[in-house]
Amino acid sequence: MRITASPQLLAILPIVRRSGAPLHRQIYDGLRRAILDGLLRPGQRVPATRVLAVELEVSRLPVLSAYEQLLHEGYLQGRVGSGTFVSEALPEDSLRAVAGGHERPPVAGHRVRSRVPPAREDGGLRPFRVSLPALDQFPHDTWSGIVARHARRFDRAHMAYGDPAGLGVLRAAIAEHLRTARAVRCEAEQVLVVSGSQAALRLCAAVLLGQGHRIAVEEPGYPGAHAALGTTGAELIPVPVGADGIDLMALDALGSRVRAAYVTPSHQYPLGASLSAPRRLALLDWARRRDAWLLEDDYDSEYRYVSRPLGALQGMDAHGRVVYIGTFSKVLFPALRIGYLVVPPTSWGAFAAAREAFDLFSPTLYQLALAEFLGEGHFARHLRRMRGVYLHRREALLDGLAEHCADALGVHNADAGLHVATMLPDGVDDVDVVRRLAAHRLTASALSTCYLGRERRSGLLLGFGGFTESQLAQATRTLGQVLRAVP
Amino acid sequence: MRITASPQLLAILPIVRRSGAPLHRQIYDGLRRAILDGLLRPGQRVPATRVLAVELEVSRLPVLSAYEQLLHEGYLQGRVGSGTFVSEALPEDSLRAVAGGHERPPVAGHRVRSRVPPAREDGGLRPFRVSLPALDQFPHDTWSGIVARHARRFDRAHMAYGDPAGLGVLRAAIAEHLRTARAVRCEAEQVLVVSGSQAALRLCAAVLLGQGHRIAVEEPGYPGAHAALGTTGAELIPVPVGADGIDLMALDALGSRVRAAYVTPSHQYPLGASLSAPRRLALLDWARRRDAWLLEDDYDSEYRYVSRPLGALQGMDAHGRVVYIGTFSKVLFPALRIGYLVVPPTSWGAFAAAREAFDLFSPTLYQLALAEFLGEGHFARHLRRMRGVYLHRREALLDGLAEHCADALGVHNADAGLHVATMLPDGVDDVDVVRRLAAHRLTASALSTCYLGRERRSGLLLGFGGFTESQLAQATRTLGQVLRAVP
Repeated sequence: MRITASPQLLAILPIVRRSGAPLHRQIYDGLRRAILDGLLRPGQRVPATRVLAVELEVSRLPVLSAYEQLLHEGYLQGRVGSGTFVSEALPEDSLRAVAGGHERPPVAGHRVRSRVPPAREDGGLRPFRVSLPALDQFPHDTWSGIVARHARRFDRAHMAYGDPAGLGVLRAAIAEHLRTARAVRCEAEQVLVVSGSQAALRLCAAVLLGQGHRIAVEEPGYPGAHAALGTTGAELIPVPVGADGIDLMALDALGSRVRAAYVTPSHQYPLGASLSAPRRLALLDWARRRDAWLLEDDYDSEYRYVSRPLGALQGMDAHGRVVYIGTFSKVLFPALRIGYLVVPPTSWGAFAAAREAFDLFSPTLYQLALAEFLGEGHFARHLRRMRGVYLHRREALLDGLAEHCADALGVHNADAGLHVATMLPDGVDDVDVVRRLAAHRLTASALSTCYLGRERRSGLLLGFGGFTESQLAQATRTLGQVLRAVP
Repeated sequence: MRITASPQLLAILPIVRRSGAPLHRQIYDGLRRAILDGLLRPGQRVPATRVLAVELEVSRLPVLSAYEQLLHEGYLQGRVGSGTFVSEALPEDSLRAVAGGHERPPVAGHRVRSRVPPAREDGGLRPFRVSLPALDQFPHDTWSGIVARHARRFDRAHMAYGDPAGLGVLRAAIAEHLRTARAVRCEAEQVLVVSGSQAALRLCAAVLLGQGHRIAVEEPGYPGAHAALGTTGAELIPVPVGADGIDLMALDALGSRVRAAYVTPSHQYPLGASLSAPRRLALLDWARRRDAWLLEDDYDSEYRYVSRPLGALQGMDAHGRVVYIGTFSKVLFPALRIGYLVVPPTSWGAFAAAREAFDLFSPTLYQLALAEFLGEGHFARHLRRMRGVYLHRREALLDGLAEHCADALGVHNADAGLHVATMLPDGVDDVDVVRRLAAHRLTASALSTCYLGRERRSGLLLGFGGFTESQLAQATRTLGQVLRAVP
């Protein structure tokens, strides 16, 4: 992008009237130095002489004189009808060389570039990226219409500082959705709006976990949660996950010095198990007996393909031990950056204060738009439609795996959510397979990276939510070829 | 807001085909229980029988039968042409009483409400709220036009997961602005987009400060920074601020066990001093000698009224010891939630990783809109216009203080930024004055709350940026009355 209007130059032209040098010389020196130092870059526009004179509170004459000299020497160039620009003819490197003897430190431009990894702006849209919803099926026109309308209506109160807990109208809409769709027992006043489940988990760490605390996490589990929950110095204790979710005997065997457990009861990440109702009650009983917290991450509970969904663990909790965490990243789109917590009333004050200290509040425009999207029923409609879409995409993935990969890959669980957990044969390095897939423009996740301990199963997590049936057919064919080529 | 489309009821109606009870009875029981438990609320719409039958994968007959019974018993009510709703006639409390003997835990609704503070949705728009820009002067049409256009154009790549460092086009625009307007030496690749300066400070704490580390902070200083910088266990050491900024002798006297100093050299918060160029060089020299970091918060450096602005400390740093922090909250509007850091290249990896673990990335739509707003020169134009606006508002505040409050309040510093620091006579409790002002719908900040140590000066921080000249004239009159009434 090109700067087409004049930049602010006040800080790089500190004119001192009392100094001996004439004004035009000071202006010439300041601009020349800024160009040589790289503060002004080739092709960048400089202010019109009239604008700069006003800004510097000097007459236009010295500015004109300085510009003329810089144009004459080739530092600036004029383009008829479009203003004055730093010359593009002089290559940057010769500029730097000229600036060599300068008293200011050299600009580290070129060195910086090589150290910084390239930007990741493709949005990770390649199959089999996990956690990616069907962006092509999103009701784009409805959503953008709502956003555009709120952008135009945006008033002063909505531009200023917002409630750290979130907009009341959004909190009410989220509470209503959670009560009816997830059987969460909550009032709007318990809902805390944050920028996603990553922020929600960090908030839980900030409020509940400190140096010396121990938190049980599922093994294998969600690496993002591990990173977030460890930030305040707590020790993460892996607890094995079996075919029916977290091993409750192993959890209880940790004794009483466990402050909390992080669980994904609706759809265990990454293996996909769902915790049965009796086991949910047993987990709640554990929390009560051990005076521990349960952090329930209900991350893609909306989609179940083989049996009816169970309500949230939170809804069965009679003792206020559950902090419920959800996000709109996987049911709407990731770049929305809105997630939420449902906090037990007794802990509200601590969570609300920590949320404010975190990053004050979430952007107001998207909160307004999302509240309308939920309140007007677009969200419920979207969820209902997406169930059919994902059912077909899941089938396409499973069909493709059966056709192209059956000899090299076993499907472990495909009951729910937006990805399928698969197992690789013993001895096959899943991280190596993921690397090979990347060379074919495919993005899978290695199961082994979800373990904290040394004992790790090898497998691939294959997202299907974000890809059409034909993309998935093509991608499974490539996957089969890559797997067969593994030595 | 009323839910006008049918909600998802899957989780609260877990129909079990194998159970002995007939389907219509299970549906009746499930809905009645959900109403009694408060999962469905009076006035809330329930799905049309046809929709619910599809959702439950049953025929429509048992759903119709269950609805009829619930309508008959008064749990539901039908409105011609607008569907079926939970009855509003039954008061919530009698519902709760009926639900008394139920095996599910009671809903804590009413108790919750009383514990949770009321939402703060007025946006804090009253005089003399500090840090509030002139929202009424914001180029609303230009901005909302840009936002609406990007909302409509929003493509799949922009809906998916974004670069944790920020959109490349925004980072480039920020870098160009900082180089020319603030003499910051940076490449786009050093710019890290975050959700505001609060998040930026927390990020600095996460990367640079840990248990046992000591960080020097200005005394008095910015309470928000104190909260953020202490989150990872570092000890905050207050260093006195004089008429020309932080006391460098006192800083150096802390010895070598100081990991970092948090400074506001352009406009010290809250007292307003600007650090002179020689003192900036001395501060940089201290950081080099002590191998310490400087966290430069350049929070409202754009506005100076009495002398030319100095370039950023960062631009004078030859040893990569400065992390530069800025935000758009005070130059555009707070609800934008976009701030940034400029990170020395050698520390890029640690900062980028911590930023991703923080909350992944910032919402993409506003990043796109802001990049265009900067790139097309609207931002530079807005800053230029605002200088004049704030100059007049500041004058109105100072005139009002001279006319109405001269006997009770001394102006300490009004050189820069969006607020004026004032001093109260010894013995006057500024927190008490702030409380009295609140009763007159005025929002001032107490200077004494900016101190970490016991020795505190009493004063008021009076924001003028967000208020018209007539508002300020009126508010200063009220302020004078309140001050004269203090016993």
